[in-house]
Amino acid sequence: MSETLTIALDAMGGDRAPDVVIKGANVARVRHPDARFLLFGDETQLVALLQRYPKLAAVSTVRHSDTVVGASDKPSNALRQGRDSSMRHAIDAVRDGEAVGVVSAGNTGALMAMAMTVLKTLPGIRRPAMASILPTQRGQTVMLDLGANVECTAENLVQFAVMGEVFARAVLGVVTPTVGLLNVGIEMVKGNDTVRTAAKLLQAGNLPITFYGFVEGDDITAGTVDVVVTDGFTGNVALKTAEGTARLCSQFLRTAFKQSLWSRIGYVFARRAILSLREQLDPRSHNGGTFLGLNGVVVKSHGSTDVLGFANAIDFAVDIAKEGFNDKVIAELAQWYAVQGEGAAAAAAV
Amino acid sequence: MSETLTIALDAMGGDRAPDVVIKGANVARVRHPDARFLLFGDETQLVALLQRYPKLAAVSTVRHSDTVVGASDKPSNALRQGRDSSMRHAIDAVRDGEAVGVVSAGNTGALMAMAMTVLKTLPGIRRPAMASILPTQRGQTVMLDLGANVECTAENLVQFAVMGEVFARAVLGVVTPTVGLLNVGIEMVKGNDTVRTAAKLLQAGNLPITFYGFVEGDDITAGTVDVVVTDGFTGNVALKTAEGTARLCSQFLRTAFKQSLWSRIGYVFARRAILSLREQLDPRSHNGGTFLGLNGVVVKSHGSTDVLGFANAIDFAVDIAKEGFNDKVIAELAQWYAVQGEGAAAAAAV
Repeated sequence: MSETLTIALDAMGGDRAPDVVIKGANVARVRHPDARFLLFGDETQLVALLQRYPKLAAVSTVRHSDTVVGASDKPSNALRQGRDSSMRHAIDAVRDGEAVGVVSAGNTGALMAMAMTVLKTLPGIRRPAMASILPTQRGQTVMLDLGANVECTAENLVQFAVMGEVFARAVLGVVTPTVGLLNVGIEMVKGNDTVRTAAKLLQAGNLPITFYGFVEGDDITAGTVDVVVTDGFTGNVALKTAEGTARLCSQFLRTAFKQSLWSRIGYVFARRAILSLREQLDPRSHNGGTFLGLNGVVVKSHGSTDVLGFANAIDFAVDIAKEGFNDKVIAELAQWYAVQGEGAAAAAAV
Repeated sequence: MSETLTIALDAMGGDRAPDVVIKGANVARVRHPDARFLLFGDETQLVALLQRYPKLAAVSTVRHSDTVVGASDKPSNALRQGRDSSMRHAIDAVRDGEAVGVVSAGNTGALMAMAMTVLKTLPGIRRPAMASILPTQRGQTVMLDLGANVECTAENLVQFAVMGEVFARAVLGVVTPTVGLLNVGIEMVKGNDTVRTAAKLLQAGNLPITFYGFVEGDDITAGTVDVVVTDGFTGNVALKTAEGTARLCSQFLRTAFKQSLWSRIGYVFARRAILSLREQLDPRSHNGGTFLGLNGVVVKSHGSTDVLGFANAIDFAVDIAKEGFNDKVIAELAQWYAVQGEGAAAAAAV
């Protein structure tokens, strides 16, 4: 990997690309004076846009890509036909050591497939998982998998737990993160075979992890644990349900302050507080998920994000790249496999 | 079933029983002047409590039960050892036609197991599902299964869709409810085999259902469809995640209005609006899940609910009982099986 902090940007990915990508990079540039950007996409469009942001242009290099991965392209098609796409070129730059990480607001499935093919998984990791940082009543919690793997084995979940724990230490700075496994109840008899087997493996104590046990859906935002582990189906639904509920709360808030003359007056006084509250409830404030378990930093931004949202996704990539997260995961997993032996790893693959 | 509107109450179930149950019934009594209550539990305690509520006592009958199902009792143990429990006696009253429905704030797993054993499932229904009504940006949505079945087949999901659709018509009064299947994306290639098979069966058009297609987590509170169908694992996590997020919003709201002198003044003016907003965000305002697919109305209240929450759960039971929901489900399913034949039903059980 490159020693300088260069981030590759898929400048054509997302609903409002390349506009939001360039403007987002311009915001991130101020926050990270040591960062450089490799912009992949239509050269004519990008060069024209950059003329408006000379300071960004000074720290950026434009690389032309002929094609763009469509939002509804199948991952398998994107893999075969997207070799000259901005997304693929941006990932290639990470593999070739030209960039420490890539940020894309494009098609999630295509990004996962391309990143796995180009970057490969870390030694010992069977499947990467998508992780994000969510706000809670006690601060922040790492949650994974958020949709990279619709079906998971117990071993997958255990590997997600290891990666999530290292991530919480490296990126959130928690000294001894607690790890919880998402389930429909906290008692050990609850749930399906996969979560019960994963819980037994995590409880066995061979892993350098503080395993809390099972947690439930409301524990995510309560901040009961530092890391919430689940399969990609449940995690994706839970994340989007939380986002939808936050939007519902925002709507209730708007309606409430229109109720009466008194509430309208109250709104005038509390306007700043209410606006900052609505920002807290806005899913874009917590934008960016990253694929853990790959040889390289890959951050996915919401496709519908705005300038600040995309800048937040770049922040996320910079943070992960700086913390040398991947090296730590490799070391932890090596330790685990050394203790367990291959037999235990195979038994885990129930 | 009895023709008079008698509701059986498990007076000993829940964290604050029997106090909350009696006080909740006293609130529900005012809302439903035609209702009568059969109270199951410790006779000495219940009679003493009722002396404080003579109007409730006038429409109630106390039946003594020796034991109580514990909150952490295994369902199988509760089934074997709980024959003289208040929960079991309350369910028996529905089977015997003494009551049109039962409400309990006790152990969910035990309630499900006892209700299935005592009341049996409706003809053609393989597994009951827990359903509830959730607030959305456009009104209300029925969601099921919320945790009765940790693992589901495609056929289970199709049956949940039928029951949910009938429920939305009967209880919400929606003329042509739309039904969505919860998934990690809306495209037909997304998800696992179970949801894809269920979607194909629902799309085949043999069912008297308006199938919308796949929906995602944020569609639940957006109110995209009238009925959201999912397995009990995902549904339970999604429901609790939504409740947790609503609580987080409430906390953000409290903090926001303490931010500055201006926001404190704003709070004074908008106090009523903020209190009604916090009530909207309070999971107890939407208390009560019901097991659909049983020969009888069974409503589960949150174990930690308060008086108003328990009264809401009784309301829910009264509404369902009045609408003759079960007869409608039986008729719809008979129609489906007549069209499909047993072969199709077997093929659905993939």
